[in-house]
Amino acid sequence: MNILVTLDSNYINPLKVMLKSLFLNNQNEEFYIFLLHSSIKPEEMEDINGFITKNGHRFLPIEIKGGDFRDAPIVMHYTKEMYYRLLAFKYLPVDVNKVLYLDPDILIINNIRTLYDIDLSGWLYAAAYHNRIPVKEINKFRLMEYEIEEYFNSGVLLMNLKMQREKIKEKDIFEFVARHKSILILPDQDILNSLFAKKIKKLDEILYNYDTRYYRRILSKGNVSMDYIINNTIILHFCGKKKPWGKNYSGEFYSLYKHYERLAMTG
Amino acid sequence: MNILVTLDSNYINPLKVMLKSLFLNNQNEEFYIFLLHSSIKPEEMEDINGFITKNGHRFLPIEIKGGDFRDAPIVMHYTKEMYYRLLAFKYLPVDVNKVLYLDPDILIINNIRTLYDIDLSGWLYAAAYHNRIPVKEINKFRLMEYEIEEYFNSGVLLMNLKMQREKIKEKDIFEFVARHKSILILPDQDILNSLFAKKIKKLDEILYNYDTRYYRRILSKGNVSMDYIINNTIILHFCGKKKPWGKNYSGEFYSLYKHYERLAMTG
Repeated sequence: MNILVTLDSNYINPLKVMLKSLFLNNQNEEFYIFLLHSSIKPEEMEDINGFITKNGHRFLPIEIKGGDFRDAPIVMHYTKEMYYRLLAFKYLPVDVNKVLYLDPDILIINNIRTLYDIDLSGWLYAAAYHNRIPVKEINKFRLMEYEIEEYFNSGVLLMNLKMQREKIKEKDIFEFVARHKSILILPDQDILNSLFAKKIKKLDEILYNYDTRYYRRILSKGNVSMDYIINNTIILHFCGKKKPWGKNYSGEFYSLYKHYERLAMTG
Repeated sequence: MNILVTLDSNYINPLKVMLKSLFLNNQNEEFYIFLLHSSIKPEEMEDINGFITKNGHRFLPIEIKGGDFRDAPIVMHYTKEMYYRLLAFKYLPVDVNKVLYLDPDILIINNIRTLYDIDLSGWLYAAAYHNRIPVKEINKFRLMEYEIEEYFNSGVLLMNLKMQREKIKEKDIFEFVARHKSILILPDQDILNSLFAKKIKKLDEILYNYDTRYYRRILSKGNVSMDYIINNTIILHFCGKKKPWGKNYSGEFYSLYKHYERLAMTG
């Protein structure tokens, strides 16, 4: 199964925690972990490689040189790495037609095969949107000329690389960014939603991209209990500024995160 | 390593969760699980046995017949099973000199060997007390004639069975209960504290009997963070009436409990 991550040195430990949870809950799978990066040091690379191979999987790092993004506009304090997941189709081997992009601030707590096997014929991506009205409305207004109906979260993206190679032009992405620099808040997510929303297959957020900040709100609305989540949700996403590896975090999934972190740090 | 549990049919699933956490976090140990009981059905016994042997450990159930407790006084709504952990020394094989009693409402989240290896020479038990002043003061007052200094929790009890066989008389326990029936709240714990407090070696509650209800209170007092707990605490104890396998539970270790529950229920 092909997994894609893009990160810098600050996220190596969270990456390991994410991968450990993926490996432990998918013991019959063989994973190919692609990493798009430009700033990770050789010794860090060795560390990641050791971790992945010790766990029985393969690591395939792809370094992107600065020259590749000569023409790319820059947005505020974001580095050019913001483009990596959207342009992954240019950098992954041409015979790789499908890949699952995962943010490092997630845990995979159940079998991921059902997600990976979703049929993407005719779709560029599959993603979940976090259906909180205020967020959605603000984003629709902010990017209104693009007639956004939902605002997809780009932290879990199943990618149809074959179709992306045919349909997506790097130039279009750069032009969009150059034109909207001033209103982009989460650039990669904004690009995804503005340019490709109609070609994104919708995923159930409770199963595939559960926003851990909203546990109480979701709980109060129905039968999505802790029991349901632990037994059915595939991906917990620790969205927001406070992260479970940082100080003063609190939240319903803190003990579970720390549990996986301990397992990752000891092997 | 010898483990003792005493329970009725209502606690079979929690028992499995507790044992699963014990096995997973102590993979180099071989466990002998003693069960003292009087009401567990043969098919339930078969189920427990299957679970323990499938996980690579041994199950040694010991049935106690009603006749054995002819002379034992009864306290309110408690059954005679309240005596089992205190009289375990009578029922376990005579060559078993040490056993660790564990309540079923706990998780073992780290290596338990350091606890088991504590030297009990000259001590009947090792136990932790939950150092919340109000609880302690009430209990000192209630059982004041026994000069209780601390009120130990009986949910995690390391037992020196050899010394218990020499020093503890069943008769003394029954007499104590007959005399104090009306003021006993948690009979087994009250007996333990009133009769044996001076022969109980103190365990660090943060490491060996962490009361999950007090996470916020303990956190606010110092450096016992979630990180510390997950990496150092051996035993999480879900004290109190609300249990993590019941409805409407909430608490900082709920997701972690449910995680182990899922692992237990699937093997």
